[in-house]
Parts: sequence; structure tokens; C-alpha cells
Amino acid sequence: MSVAIVGAGPGDPGLVTVRALELVRAADVLVYDRLVAPELVAEAVGAARIARETLTQTEVNETLVHHARCGRAVVRLKGGDPFVFGRGGEEAQALAEAGVPFDVVPGVSTLTAVPALAGIPLTHRGFAGQVTVLTGTNGDGSDLDYGQLAATGGTLVVFMGLKRLEHIADGLILAGRPMDEPAAVVSRASLPGERVVTGTLATNAALAVDLPSPSLVVIGEVVALARTTVARVPAF
Amino acid sequence: MSVAIVGAGPGDPGLVTVRALELVRAADVLVYDRLVAPELVAEAVGAARIARETLTQTEVNETLVHHARCGRAVVRLKGGDPFVFGRGGEEAQALAEAGVPFDVVPGVSTLTAVPALAGIPLTHRGFAGQVTVLTGTNGDGSDLDYGQLAATGGTLVVFMGLKRLEHIADGLILAGRPMDEPAAVVSRASLPGERVVTGTLATNAALAVDLPSPSLVVIGEVVALARTTVARVPAF
Repeated sequence: MSVAIVGAGPGDPGLVTVRALELVRAADVLVYDRLVAPELVAEAVGAARIARETLTQTEVNETLVHHARCGRAVVRLKGGDPFVFGRGGEEAQALAEAGVPFDVVPGVSTLTAVPALAGIPLTHRGFAGQVTVLTGTNGDGSDLDYGQLAATGGTLVVFMGLKRLEHIADGLILAGRPMDEPAAVVSRASLPGERVVTGTLATNAALAVDLPSPSLVVIGEVVALARTTVARVPAF
Repeated sequence: MSVAIVGAGPGDPGLVTVRALELVRAADVLVYDRLVAPELVAEAVGAARIARETLTQTEVNETLVHHARCGRAVVRLKGGDPFVFGRGGEEAQALAEAGVPFDVVPGVSTLTAVPALAGIPLTHRGFAGQVTVLTGTNGDGSDLDYGQLAATGGTLVVFMGLKRLEHIADGLILAGRPMDEPAAVVSRASLPGERVVTGTLATNAALAVDLPSPSLVVIGEVVALARTTVARVPAF
């Protein structure tokens, strides 16, 4: 009786781990996120495949517990890494409370993969020795603390920030961040139609307004190292 | 003519990506870090295998450029993710300046994998919506800006911080961070002898004094969610 909470990586099925692929192939039940590559879901040949989006979070937790208790090999396949803005912690807690043992198999996180694919090192000698990662809105719906963020040294990485990018950029500039600080939006990294837009904190929102999700915003001097022609990682 | 800068993951060879393993197997020249699993290096059956530690950074750059220009498939296999405190950016820059095309294949980063393996979600609803990542010392050898770090909300993750943990904890406490804030040291995550020590900002350094490297320090309320019995990820 066990559940594996497994990261599927940023989208390209070649960026799944060897261990994750083994677990998917051996699964009896696979509960997968919308952003997981269809090629990966198709690898779960013998499994009941359940799309996460058809369920509430409570139902996801109950499904994992139920099938594990029935002795099935359950794999919860999540986009990116389960424990970085992935709510893997909530599912792990639910399993622990139900007395169901679970493994965590970390995946290639959007946080690190997306800037890397765009040629942006999150840290770089002489550019940035610190990275702060946040979402475009706080969990309780309140606005960000721009004073604190503007005072933070190094690179800022914003998840789910594209729709509010102009608002966030304005907040950072008014709190003292330079308006000509380099900024990038990486859209659909590792997926067909990948786009990288680079500009400044002042201009980036206008440049990136039509980019499709998922996307990641990177703000800081390291963006000056970006290349706009991004090498493709072929699928397996 | 090309070079692939490839992340090998946190240590366990099962946490390498499918794409990385394909590239290693097809390599003519493999330049690998000390922390990369020997099982992965052994997969480069037909390759000249060069340990990075036998070379200076300049020599690494020259080796990559030389073999690429001679038409060989060159793989630069790095521990964790190449672009998070991995100096992948410096090697990418050297290749770009030499006119050598390169691909980046992101890996499972220590930053996200190590806390996940210890059952610590870097973000968790109601606990932390922001993560700041830093090294134990600044690149120029100067001390950290504890005032700025103490004012940062959310989780702190410290790379290469174990030896200076008491100093760092003292700095954060004196700058206003609570002395009973949960803190963890994760040693040798995903490797044999993995250990997770949890305590508080005030006590953790003493508890973790004998832990072997590599290690990662995590500070913040999310540490309260850690489990000290960590599931093993079997090798492939």
C-alpha cells in the first residue's frame, strides 16, 4: 500500500526522470495534471488514468487514499516539481493523516528549468547570488509586499504572474527597483510554441501581453545573459 | 558541432532525466562533476570521460570548445541543475563567445529535490508563499545582509551553508528572525547515508554539526511539515 507523488517536469516528456517513467509504467492508478505531457500519460498502459481537473482537491486526496488502501500502485503525476507551488504538500499531508505511506519523486521544476531553457542562469558570478521566488498574488488574494521585494537583492522569479505583470512591475518600480532592470517572460518553455520575450521592468508587460500560459517571469541582471533563440529539447 | 550542458540531478541516478541519459549514452566526450553518480558516468560507454575536478574552470571551457570544434558530441554533466549555483552560466558564456552552439538540458535541482525528499514543501498554503535561495557566503567573500534576509517573508534555502550555520543563524536571530523558527539540515539527500535533522534556528547548528556534505539548510515554518523518515528513491 503506497502512493508515489511524482514530478513530471516542465512539459517536454524528455525531461521526466528515469524513476518517474518507471513508476508511471508500473502504475495501477494514475492521477495526472492537465499540464503533464500526453506522451507520459500514455506510458501508463495498464493503469486507470484519472485527470486531476475532473476532481476537487478533496476528491483527489480521497482517490489517492482509497486506491492505496485497495492495494493498488498509485502514482500522482504532477507538472513541474510537486513541492514548488504544486500543492504536493497538501496531498502528502492528507496521505500522512490517513496513515498511507508515500514516496516523493522530485521532478525538474519549472522554477529552474524554464530560465535555464531560455539561457538565463538564476545565479551568476558578479550578477546575482540570491534568488527569490513568488507567485503573482498571495494565497489569500492580498497584494504583494513591494517594499520588501524591491529591497531583496538578486533575481526575482514570479510564477503565475503574467496577467498581473504590469501591476507587479509598477509596484516594484514605485518601491525603488530600477525601471530599466532587465526582465523576461518565458512562455510555454520546453513545449511547442515556446517564446522568450526580454525587455525591462518598465517595458516587459507590454511586450508580453499576448503570450500564452504557462509562463514564468524573471526579473534581474541575469536576464541580460538570455538568448532569445532557445535550443529545443527533443522528445523521447 | 555542439555541446550539451546537462543537469544530472541531486545524486541518485534514478533522478536523471530520460533526455540526459540518452545524451550521456551517445557522448563522444563526457566532462562530469565529482557529485555525479558513478552509475551515470558508466553509461557513457564509448566516451572519453574527463573528471571536472582535474581541470581549472578555464581548462573546462577550453576542453568543451576544443572537442566541439573537432566534431565530437560533447556532454557537460553537472550535479543538480546547471544554472542554480552550478556555474553553468559561465560555461554557456564561454561557448557563446567561442561561437560554439550549445543546448541546455535542465536537471532536477538540489534546490527543489532536497527539501521534497525530506518531506518539506518549499511553499505551502498558509505556511509560505515565497522562497529565497542563497549561498552561505557571498561570491566576493563578504558576509550576508542579515537585515534584508530577516525581513524577507517565507522560506529561506541556504546552499553551502552548513559550515557557517551557527554564524548565519546568529545573524538572522539578531536581525529579528524568531529563535524558535523551524529549521532543517538535509545531508546527502537521495544518496546512501541520507540524514534529515530538524530543530530551530537557535538549535539546529549544534544538532547538525557532524553531518557530511553535500547538505542544504531550510529555514521557515514549512520545516514543521518535514518527516524525518525519508522514503528512498531506488536507483535504476
